[in-house]
Amino acid sequence: MKLNIALLAGDGIGPEVINEAVKVSDAVAKKFNHEITWTPALTGAAAIDAVGEPYPDATHDICMAADAVLFGAIGHPKYDNDPSAPVRPEQGLLKMRKKLGLFANVRPTFTFPSLLDKSPLKRERIEGTDLVFLRELTGGIYFGEKGRRDNGDTAFDNCVYTREEVQRLAKKGFELAMTRSKKLCCVDKANVLETSRLWRETVQAMEKDYPEVEVSYEFVDAVAMRLVQWPNSYDVLITENLFGDILTDEASVISGSMGLMPSASMGSKIALFEPIHGSYPQATGLNIANPMATILSAAMMFENFGLMEEGKAMRDAVNKALEAGIVTEDLANGGKAYGTKEVGDWLAANV
Amino acid sequence: MKLNIALLAGDGIGPEVINEAVKVSDAVAKKFNHEITWTPALTGAAAIDAVGEPYPDATHDICMAADAVLFGAIGHPKYDNDPSAPVRPEQGLLKMRKKLGLFANVRPTFTFPSLLDKSPLKRERIEGTDLVFLRELTGGIYFGEKGRRDNGDTAFDNCVYTREEVQRLAKKGFELAMTRSKKLCCVDKANVLETSRLWRETVQAMEKDYPEVEVSYEFVDAVAMRLVQWPNSYDVLITENLFGDILTDEASVISGSMGLMPSASMGSKIALFEPIHGSYPQATGLNIANPMATILSAAMMFENFGLMEEGKAMRDAVNKALEAGIVTEDLANGGKAYGTKEVGDWLAANV
Ligand SMILES: CC(C)[C@H](C(=O)O)[C@@H](O)C(=O)O
Ligand SMILES: CC(C)[C@H](C(=O)O)[C@@H](O)C(=O)O
Repeated sequence: MKLNIALLAGDGIGPEVINEAVKVSDAVAKKFNHEITWTPALTGAAAIDAVGEPYPDATHDICMAADAVLFGAIGHPKYDNDPSAPVRPEQGLLKMRKKLGLFANVRPTFTFPSLLDKSPLKRERIEGTDLVFLRELTGGIYFGEKGRRDNGDTAFDNCVYTREEVQRLAKKGFELAMTRSKKLCCVDKANVLETSRLWRETVQAMEKDYPEVEVSYEFVDAVAMRLVQWPNSYDVLITENLFGDILTDEASVISGSMGLMPSASMGSKIALFEPIHGSYPQATGLNIANPMATILSAAMMFENFGLMEEGKAMRDAVNKALEAGIVTEDLANGGKAYGTKEVGDWLAANV
Repeated sequence: MKLNIALLAGDGIGPEVINEAVKVSDAVAKKFNHEITWTPALTGAAAIDAVGEPYPDATHDICMAADAVLFGAIGHPKYDNDPSAPVRPEQGLLKMRKKLGLFANVRPTFTFPSLLDKSPLKRERIEGTDLVFLRELTGGIYFGEKGRRDNGDTAFDNCVYTREEVQRLAKKGFELAMTRSKKLCCVDKANVLETSRLWRETVQAMEKDYPEVEVSYEFVDAVAMRLVQWPNSYDVLITENLFGDILTDEASVISGSMGLMPSASMGSKIALFEPIHGSYPQATGLNIANPMATILSAAMMFENFGLMEEGKAMRDAVNKALEAGIVTEDLANGGKAYGTKEVGDWLAANV
């Protein structure tokens, strides 16, 4: 297979972890006789600094021409804590999601036996957890009309959803549930919000098309609780943009493996793969960042092309590295810590 | 002091736990020479069944004439899972909050040493946690315009805040912080929402009036993570209605003492006190419900009248009961379980 991948390294440790993901992906490609062309493009603070725009048109064109996008991380302290600054890296993120039509953010939370002790939860609470959130990513209050009235003394944000937006996200949820344990939880606040009632009635109407899937409906506040109490009681969860923002982050810390969690954002044309961790500016250039989440994101990318064995080879290599203690400082537990590059080298040699 | 308290027992176990709170409050009142007149009124499913309305005008009048409201719990399975039913108990709740002007929901999360093992979190994560959320309760997306367009295919919910609404909530937050460790965290999503930017700029402008308070600003998704990772790093948190709904529920399960957590909702005229737990319909009438959260809510009520010793007497009694194992089934840990009434009797005898 010939693959053309847009490479958006971004800020902070982004370029370093992306480098290792490229290295390991190339090793897998070689082994399985694929050919990957990587096309780098600017994004985030790096793009603001270079061309005054966090998601430049040139970058968008590169993404649209690619078969998939591999993304590092964005965000830089000089843009932090000033949410009203005229140009911010996050705006690039939102613009990118919207323009690429990435309506479904796929966020798995799973555990690695060797990392269970890093979880803030007791072992018996977290063991066996393997859930996936599908977060709607291009609608809701993120993209509704927002502004001020009354000389700036009144602010508003409008949350809007159409039935079609709910259907296409829910469809992905039902399909994913069919490949897993056939359990789907629709997370909403239908006791208060009209948009949530639209979500619930739309999903309810789709149930008949997936008779094997057992669907439950839970309020967002109840899910925020149960995620901490019994995370392993969940399988596939679907939800709207803002609830997804909060709950996927909550879910990410329960496993103890946050630094290892990959994600995908799927559109009808193109998909983007990225680690869920941030740009950790303070670690930039120190060769200490953990590249595994980005490498596992690349594994999701291969799998999304139907290249399941390739993805598995990368996952297996990561598992082996964890068992063999070939890990960066964050996972070293007082033992030997390897550098970002060394972990990448080891994985490339072991896929 | 002569106190006139409106008593809204509500549904499920509400009446049972309220009975015990009355019993213990009367015992404290007797000891400290106060006189409490309790005026019961209908609310929730019980009120729908009786008069077709979850928060009848007669109930509102009783509340407005009282010095405070003590509330049990509402909700009944026959109204569950049908968020589009024309009359629902939650509507009564929202109407009550709005009509009584209860703009600040006070939700403490603290630990009891004897209950730490019930927490889903590891001991070292939860030990020492003592935080309070102030959730805005009468504004935001809960009360903005909502509805449908396009023959029902598009739904919308509008989130609106005014500077004044933010100020009165933030003022309570700063004041509370001054009585505690002078740390205040403003939780928002100012990188995306205009209402959040109004929140942040309003709180920032108030900082100069409370020079001793150290204020931090955190995004709601980051707080959802840190609450699980390092709950004891927080003290007072202020936030808007929907974020507060999600985060206070998340916070409630981390301590292991959820069944014991009280709450208060404050307005400019009147305040309401209630346990955070639900109406547990399946436990109704079995004399097994834990009355302690309602009793601790009554303690908050006394303290809100400036009757600090009275509140402390109730808290101390609860601590003693926990240590002596005078607890309901939920806390019995395989040991002897006392009934709702028996726990109330013991506490009344020991305040
Ligand atoms: C940076 C921010 C705009 C973004 C979001 O809220 O979607 C982030 O929190 C995320 O989840 O990717
Ligand atoms: C029942 C519901 C409307 C309510 C809310 O969302 O405010 C509840 O979850 C709460 O937190 O008191």
